[in-house]
Amino acid sequence: MNEQYLQILGQQAKQASFALANLSAPQKATLLSTIAAQLTAAADEIVAANQQDVEAAKAAGLNQAMIDRLLLDKTRLAGVIADIDNVIALADPIGREFDSRLLDNGMRLCRRSVPLGVIGVIYEARPNVTVDIAVLALKTGNAVILRGGKETLNSNRALAKVIRAAVASCGLPEDAVQLIDNPDRALVTGLLKLDQYVDMIVPRGGDKLQRLCAEQATIPVILGGIGICHLYVDKAADLARSTDVIINAKVQRPTVCNALDTVLVHEQVAAQYLPLLAQALSDKGVKLVGCEITRGLLSGFDVAVADDTSFATEWLSLTIGIKVVGDIDHAIDHIRQFSSGHSEAILTDDIAAATHFMNEVNSAAVYLNASTRFTDGGQFGLGAEVAVSTQKLHARGPMGLEALTTYKWLGVGDYTARS
Amino acid sequence: MNEQYLQILGQQAKQASFALANLSAPQKATLLSTIAAQLTAAADEIVAANQQDVEAAKAAGLNQAMIDRLLLDKTRLAGVIADIDNVIALADPIGREFDSRLLDNGMRLCRRSVPLGVIGVIYEARPNVTVDIAVLALKTGNAVILRGGKETLNSNRALAKVIRAAVASCGLPEDAVQLIDNPDRALVTGLLKLDQYVDMIVPRGGDKLQRLCAEQATIPVILGGIGICHLYVDKAADLARSTDVIINAKVQRPTVCNALDTVLVHEQVAAQYLPLLAQALSDKGVKLVGCEITRGLLSGFDVAVADDTSFATEWLSLTIGIKVVGDIDHAIDHIRQFSSGHSEAILTDDIAAATHFMNEVNSAAVYLNASTRFTDGGQFGLGAEVAVSTQKLHARGPMGLEALTTYKWLGVGDYTARS
Repeated sequence: MNEQYLQILGQQAKQASFALANLSAPQKATLLSTIAAQLTAAADEIVAANQQDVEAAKAAGLNQAMIDRLLLDKTRLAGVIADIDNVIALADPIGREFDSRLLDNGMRLCRRSVPLGVIGVIYEARPNVTVDIAVLALKTGNAVILRGGKETLNSNRALAKVIRAAVASCGLPEDAVQLIDNPDRALVTGLLKLDQYVDMIVPRGGDKLQRLCAEQATIPVILGGIGICHLYVDKAADLARSTDVIINAKVQRPTVCNALDTVLVHEQVAAQYLPLLAQALSDKGVKLVGCEITRGLLSGFDVAVADDTSFATEWLSLTIGIKVVGDIDHAIDHIRQFSSGHSEAILTDDIAAATHFMNEVNSAAVYLNASTRFTDGGQFGLGAEVAVSTQKLHARGPMGLEALTTYKWLGVGDYTARS
Repeated sequence: MNEQYLQILGQQAKQASFALANLSAPQKATLLSTIAAQLTAAADEIVAANQQDVEAAKAAGLNQAMIDRLLLDKTRLAGVIADIDNVIALADPIGREFDSRLLDNGMRLCRRSVPLGVIGVIYEARPNVTVDIAVLALKTGNAVILRGGKETLNSNRALAKVIRAAVASCGLPEDAVQLIDNPDRALVTGLLKLDQYVDMIVPRGGDKLQRLCAEQATIPVILGGIGICHLYVDKAADLARSTDVIINAKVQRPTVCNALDTVLVHEQVAAQYLPLLAQALSDKGVKLVGCEITRGLLSGFDVAVADDTSFATEWLSLTIGIKVVGDIDHAIDHIRQFSSGHSEAILTDDIAAATHFMNEVNSAAVYLNASTRFTDGGQFGLGAEVAVSTQKLHARGPMGLEALTTYKWLGVGDYTARS
């Protein structure tokens, strides 16, 4: 039953993708404008559907943060719709030809950027993602299969209905955007094995979802969004200026993947700096989890015991790990052992230390004298963000439109045979 | 037991990868030259080990093609070693910085090309692959775990021993190149799940190996090497010049993935052309498998009945499928249904037909008036070929050195916090 449903879903998506692949940039702009207009026109209906989800969430006793996350009121919906204009304004990444060359046999060869085809996105209870991803997929000529959190089923149904109608009103197949609106979890596993039709899976969710996708998918998956992020305070750091950066990295938005998890401090400055840093962090309500040396230096503070488990934790809250390291290579070793490959930073005024760190640390983003919080499609000027990849193939770090494209090789001969 | 063995293998590879990642181009050239020299010096030993494999293969009753494939005599070994010089001569793809930009907050951001880290390669009984892949991996600063066919175990052991000694003699960790020299198949499945240490798996083998990797791997896999390739003879094709291209695509080397499998012929030229084509193919010993219309038009020839199963077959032999299509869109539909996404071609002198085909057919390589046989790293001028990818992420078509690299984002601020 599920299998047949998914097969049809996949076939429809693949078929729709053919109609999208060669749309011109103006055609896609018109499509996205139409979606924006029809979402605006259907705002009451969408907000009402979301209200059902909110009521159900309250009745189910979900916590306030969760309920806030799934809320889509008029103001937020307007923001989501306004973002469509930003996507329309981005350059179309499709159809560009590059690496053109004339082979010795006279054949002209090049690569042309083309859509991936069909993208599957699995995400949590954030209804804005339904619109964001559909718009980014269509902008790049891809069909998309959406699977959102069950807590936002009514919202997602309302949004998908409007988007599909808008697609159809532009003379395009509505199956360009399909929502799996059955909360059965077996459909997620089934989607991950639909390799005949789906070209890429993007899981936007926590560690459990990422592992499920890595283990079950027969389709290429872009893992990401898990950030165990480090910042190393070198002995040559400007300590007076360091605290603001660390506070920013930890406190500005502690629940996101680019928030700081562990600060590593060179032992030569630890005694001087750690009490100042601990005070500043404590003032912001940050809980401290420190190594033995840290705890010794911070006897006036409440510092929990850090171990390998805590250093391997993505806090997603106002907690920070602190470790004193003997030198920069110890810092690098610690990062290699515990990092999820997302974002790391060094604070130093020493060029050799900076170069060494930037060379040896191999995460998606490595910063010199900057906060880890910058790892973000908007901050990087990509104009949009599909996800943040922590794997190394295809896309790394913040994924913009380019990550939803691939290329094909085009060869033009004159009845040319290989000799 | 196996699990512990693989864990250690993975750890050693990851550790070795750190030492390789920042080697300069001259250092890597020296390393590869040393490998070439030491392979030359050990030629007798390597050829003797290969002779053991050849004897065992003969004793086991392997067919001549298989035995020929695993043979590594002095001449062939010299060729493999000579190829190392070609790799040395290629530009080093590592360390290039690109997409540099100055963000509004003053941060300088760029991407830098870096090695993937650790690559796992699973391949058949071709001992040359052991050297080829090790050399390409080292050239790009990657550590590699090799798993070759059991029929070449002695050859691979001899080759890996020399390569590892050469690596060590350059002051680098010999675990940069590791060979799984235990024929237990469970080690392949185990390798596919070593995601903590291995960054990419490249399976170089048939459909069964590809499926095993797609289904079992928790590591990103580059699928490829399966080519169900099509050539469409348009009504506006220069028929007199078409036959040479088709013969080339089918006959030049029928056992490889870019060889032609199915020829599609526009119905308006089928009656005129098919007898000529069939005669030319038959003269070369090609067996014909045709649709009903084809069989009607080729009553004087021995044409087996084509069905969906035969059209979904990668022949890898002197057999060809033939189908008469009503128009170009029927040809495109057939390709979309049966292609493995490797290589397709159109023969036509009509610009509109050519453009339509090149736009609508989305395989790794699409040709106008050329043989499918061109899909090859050497032919494309990539200088080397790791594999031919038929998937859309990371690398598509012939994979050169670039496919063994990724990038990291580097941000340089001035104690910059996100506002």
